[in-house]
Amino acid sequence: MNTNEKSLLLHEENKGKISIKSKVKVENKEDLSLAYTPGVAEPCRRIHNNKDDIYKYTSKGNTVAVVTDGSAVLGLGDIGPDASLPVMEGKCILFKEFADVDSIPICIDSNDVDTIVNTVKLIQSSIGGINLEDISAPRCFQIEERLKNELNIPVFHDDQHGTAIVVLAGIMNSCRLLNKKLENLKIVINGSGAAGIAICKLLYKVGIKEIILCDTKGAIYKGRENLNWIKEEISEITNINLEKGTLKDIISGKDVFIGVSAPDIVTGDMVKSMNKDAIIFALANPVPEIMPNIAKENGAKIVATGRSDFSNQINNVLAFPGIFRGALDVRAKEITDEMKIEAAKAIAFTIDDEELREDYIIPDSFNKKVMPAVAEAVKKIVTF
Amino acid sequence: MNTNEKSLLLHEENKGKISIKSKVKVENKEDLSLAYTPGVAEPCRRIHNNKDDIYKYTSKGNTVAVVTDGSAVLGLGDIGPDASLPVMEGKCILFKEFADVDSIPICIDSNDVDTIVNTVKLIQSSIGGINLEDISAPRCFQIEERLKNELNIPVFHDDQHGTAIVVLAGIMNSCRLLNKKLENLKIVINGSGAAGIAICKLLYKVGIKEIILCDTKGAIYKGRENLNWIKEEISEITNINLEKGTLKDIISGKDVFIGVSAPDIVTGDMVKSMNKDAIIFALANPVPEIMPNIAKENGAKIVATGRSDFSNQINNVLAFPGIFRGALDVRAKEITDEMKIEAAKAIAFTIDDEELREDYIIPDSFNKKVMPAVAEAVKKIVTF
Repeated sequence: MNTNEKSLLLHEENKGKISIKSKVKVENKEDLSLAYTPGVAEPCRRIHNNKDDIYKYTSKGNTVAVVTDGSAVLGLGDIGPDASLPVMEGKCILFKEFADVDSIPICIDSNDVDTIVNTVKLIQSSIGGINLEDISAPRCFQIEERLKNELNIPVFHDDQHGTAIVVLAGIMNSCRLLNKKLENLKIVINGSGAAGIAICKLLYKVGIKEIILCDTKGAIYKGRENLNWIKEEISEITNINLEKGTLKDIISGKDVFIGVSAPDIVTGDMVKSMNKDAIIFALANPVPEIMPNIAKENGAKIVATGRSDFSNQINNVLAFPGIFRGALDVRAKEITDEMKIEAAKAIAFTIDDEELREDYIIPDSFNKKVMPAVAEAVKKIVTF
Repeated sequence: MNTNEKSLLLHEENKGKISIKSKVKVENKEDLSLAYTPGVAEPCRRIHNNKDDIYKYTSKGNTVAVVTDGSAVLGLGDIGPDASLPVMEGKCILFKEFADVDSIPICIDSNDVDTIVNTVKLIQSSIGGINLEDISAPRCFQIEERLKNELNIPVFHDDQHGTAIVVLAGIMNSCRLLNKKLENLKIVINGSGAAGIAICKLLYKVGIKEIILCDTKGAIYKGRENLNWIKEEISEITNINLEKGTLKDIISGKDVFIGVSAPDIVTGDMVKSMNKDAIIFALANPVPEIMPNIAKENGAKIVATGRSDFSNQINNVLAFPGIFRGALDVRAKEITDEMKIEAAKAIAFTIDDEELREDYIIPDSFNKKVMPAVAEAVKKIVTF
């Protein structure tokens, strides 16, 4: 059986992946009278008198809603809320297995920003954090921004920030290994959806000045025609030399290529045109922008992909479990850029100096040190 | 410690009562590739091609949303969605512990019928059934009706139908024990909220003709002033002799009193005025309409309450777990009156003829025979 067949079987045999578990026993009348009526009235009264007690007497504080509209699911595109459910259940069990965070899938049958925001707000009572998932750009930015402003719990769009954090960790370790200064890197990012925009913003936040974002029409620069609002916003802080042209033109003379775009769009010659010791993050899935061996043969020093069968896998599971574990533990009201940067450092430094190699700049997805390190990094920002 | 203190401690120590469990293991890269990317894309594709496959590859088919707006929580009234959460989590763990149904609390921050209906519709992808809970009358009737019409999954308002089913089971067994004919009973129901209305309708469905529903102003009769729409509707099928007056007037000469109202409003003299071998279901909680010993001293033959410390406890947990177990197992699209009646019979007949006694007309809440019997009864309606 191939992976698809095995996956179907796994899903069918288990009828999905997520179930509920009671944290208390209900075996006799006394149990029932404490977990349910009449005893349950007392925690209700306490919360009614003091809203904050909901964190003391309910599971809200450990519960994350994995919210989608099914508009940008994996490489499948806009398949809608029903068909997205296997992914959302998958995310929920990763939250549980990697960080003991309880999460539930909320697949919203609407692509309207207002409707999605209002729906989440209407059902927030039982929810301690929001993980937005697989919502297409540029609506994902508006939805996240509005929820961040209008809710009092952490909101995190994993396709943006999870990816950005792990990419940053990889870039940090690449610099560590190659003795480059982060701030001096010249970077081209291909793909200006959720991930591309977020990577760009986070790299800018850590002080990298020369970043160029490309879309299918080539380099984004200030004043280019037909930019949507988010690209226009990004054109203000990127491409300071107003470079124009296709990816092929732009990649030349850069230190780093980050692709969150499409298969096989980078050629060996394009890698050759980059600066010495080029760093290639080819994250298109399942087929990367360039295969690692071709990149290496043409001078790339470090290659990362999104795939588990190559070394240096950029996998969001390194970030989001610890991010939420930390945020929930200290009841952070938001996930700040500072937290994301510290989380990236935490991921990077789970690899010791002696371990760091060209094919080991990113810890393994199952590295047990990562989640606690990320959670601690997030907590420190809030606590100290 | 009293019950309230113990309950607070239980809730605080466990930080609520509900958690998530993964049905599949995620211990290595292969697991990850099947439960999540890239393998998860295949069940997504299947569902995208055939909507019905969502029941095959996801947990939807075993997932019930416990939906409330917090407007009629226990005896606490309109305490809002946050403060209602301990009750909803309690309901969820009862679903799990009694019937292996996975359920999640959805506490909606609105009292508007349209908003509640639309919110549920927007998030229905991951949900296989709706249990409405603690929503005040008469909005609860409209919300249930609209959701039944507009959704393709079973919708059940437990405060109405769960109570009605267990009451009917108790009345059936009372008749069995006392050799009375169900159809000939003269019944007064005091309390015309969700439970009173639903009990009334279900008793009417099984062929009982003489039912009078009372509210705080006394008997409801056709043409009475200031009836809301649901009471007006009920006045069409009840009180065929147009009896008028207070509960004290009405209870006289009746066989059965069912109270879903307020403490201590039935006196010994009122019981005396009833027919021989009177049946009293005094379900106000925690203090019943009349204490069992007083009812008995004044001629009541059978007394049931909502309390676990008296015999004959009318507890919804006898009904809702099996109702949903059965409905989900056969993918029933709705919970019909026929299912409710068969469920009541199933509950009643878990007590054998030899076991049936005045103080044992209702099985114990933890009787292991009940849930499977109710589930089977529900399934038979759909399957045959």
